Amino acid sequence: MVIGVFDSGVGGLTVVRELLRHMPDQAIIYLGDTARTPYGTKSSETIIDYSIEDTGFLVSKGANLIVIACHSASSVATNAIRQHFSLPVFEVVSPSIQQAIALTKKGRIGIIGTRATVASGVYEKTIPELSPEIKVFSQACPLLVPLVEEGWIKRSETRRIVKKYLRPLREREIDTLILGCTHYPLLRPVIQEKIGKTVQIVDPAQEVALTVRKFIEQKQDKAEKASNNANRFFLTDLTPTTASVVRQFLGAKILLEKIEL
Amino acid sequence: MVIGVFDSGVGGLTVVRELLRHMPDQAIIYLGDTARTPYGTKSSETIIDYSIEDTGFLVSKGANLIVIACHSASSVATNAIRQHFSLPVFEVVSPSIQQAIALTKKGRIGIIGTRATVASGVYEKTIPELSPEIKVFSQACPLLVPLVEEGWIKRSETRRIVKKYLRPLREREIDTLILGCTHYPLLRPVIQEKIGKTVQIVDPAQEVALTVRKFIEQKQDKAEKASNNANRFFLTDLTPTTASVVRQFLGAKILLEKIEL
Repeated sequence: MVIGVFDSGVGGLTVVRELLRHMPDQAIIYLGDTARTPYGTKSSETIIDYSIEDTGFLVSKGANLIVIACHSASSVATNAIRQHFSLPVFEVVSPSIQQAIALTKKGRIGIIGTRATVASGVYEKTIPELSPEIKVFSQACPLLVPLVEEGWIKRSETRRIVKKYLRPLREREIDTLILGCTHYPLLRPVIQEKIGKTVQIVDPAQEVALTVRKFIEQKQDKAEKASNNANRFFLTDLTPTTASVVRQFLGAKILLEKIEL
Repeated sequence: MVIGVFDSGVGGLTVVRELLRHMPDQAIIYLGDTARTPYGTKSSETIIDYSIEDTGFLVSKGANLIVIACHSASSVATNAIRQHFSLPVFEVVSPSIQQAIALTKKGRIGIIGTRATVASGVYEKTIPELSPEIKVFSQACPLLVPLVEEGWIKRSETRRIVKKYLRPLREREIDTLILGCTHYPLLRPVIQEKIGKTVQIVDPAQEVALTVRKFIEQKQDKAEKASNNANRFFLTDLTPTTASVVRQFLGAKILLEKIEL
């Protein structure tokens, strides 16, 4: 199988990192829509249009399984993608919801994300459908993406802003927190500190990787597995800082190809 | 004349505000490319492509004079627009440069802007060509746009970040500072405080409005002037928060029309 992964930008490489960690022999095609990034501040309608274009590109390059790495796109565009394309589509919301439900003891789950993800209300809607006794509290944290992209991971300003964003969730006494944006795993240490040491953190990148691995293991026989390991990384825009940001997210240097959608 | 104004998003409304203040009877067509905002983090190539599309849209709606309100587009795309379209094109860089040269006494000018604007080097190149004795110091301030768009105008975090960004310019003992991004006039009080009370601030929105007014007054006779005052405001994306952000920038409520490019 060829796994096609798309994201609004380079943040989705945190998902690629987990996919490669759990399936090092799997071929991955990545598309980061850096020319139109970010998605999380935009309308559902626009995010759906862009996501369908992104998926179409991955399919044209040979992907036969799609992973939506972007939480904003996962929250608002998954159904539309499934309607347009007849191939397996995985997204980062459902696996993290299942893991959060499995982990919570007090039945109080927090979720942080972009404005678009939080406004979609997908967590508040889905979690009580699965476990009616669980309470869900969400908080939009729009400044965390630009702070991470600036590389301000450990700065005092970032720590203060994280603290401010997390205060309402802390007051709600959540015991489980979903990192509902690809960029947030890079802030995990400061998020853990500010939300409290006892709160369990769910990293959707890891959860979706485990889900995809399980699916692929059931689908294909072992002979096929190690066949075509030729990962490709496409971006719709490249700037002088892109390569270093990519390295920060993926933990490795890669060849980047610029394309137009 | 119909003035067509474009920007990467809603920030350019600070320019519209000045145009309306100085030419209340002039018809204005505004295009904010909110579906692809921001431009300032993207490559010159991409900014040029988008700017030509934006200008083409304004021309199709009847604009016969173009104002580039976006500093990133002004810095990298002005020549390309002039090559593609045969109509007067004004941008926010040149008028502010002239005003800064007129104001500086010590010959030390500072400029703050997005990564794209600062990387273009247009100020460092142009100012010494006009006045070889003047020294120019620039500083990219990428977090200020998201902070303004969050409405964090007076927050302590914003004040600290502004102070951090301005420190190198303060150490260079500039006496004149150009606000090289449409969003920065909203932070003018804190910028003035952190750079020092004696530093003169140049607001490019005001300078370009005065330049355009002068041009139009020379061009047209008074009879034509008050004819067609029908301003229109087009955006490529609308979200639930757009209307309130627009109000913050323009200081007035307006009808917004969504279009696709």
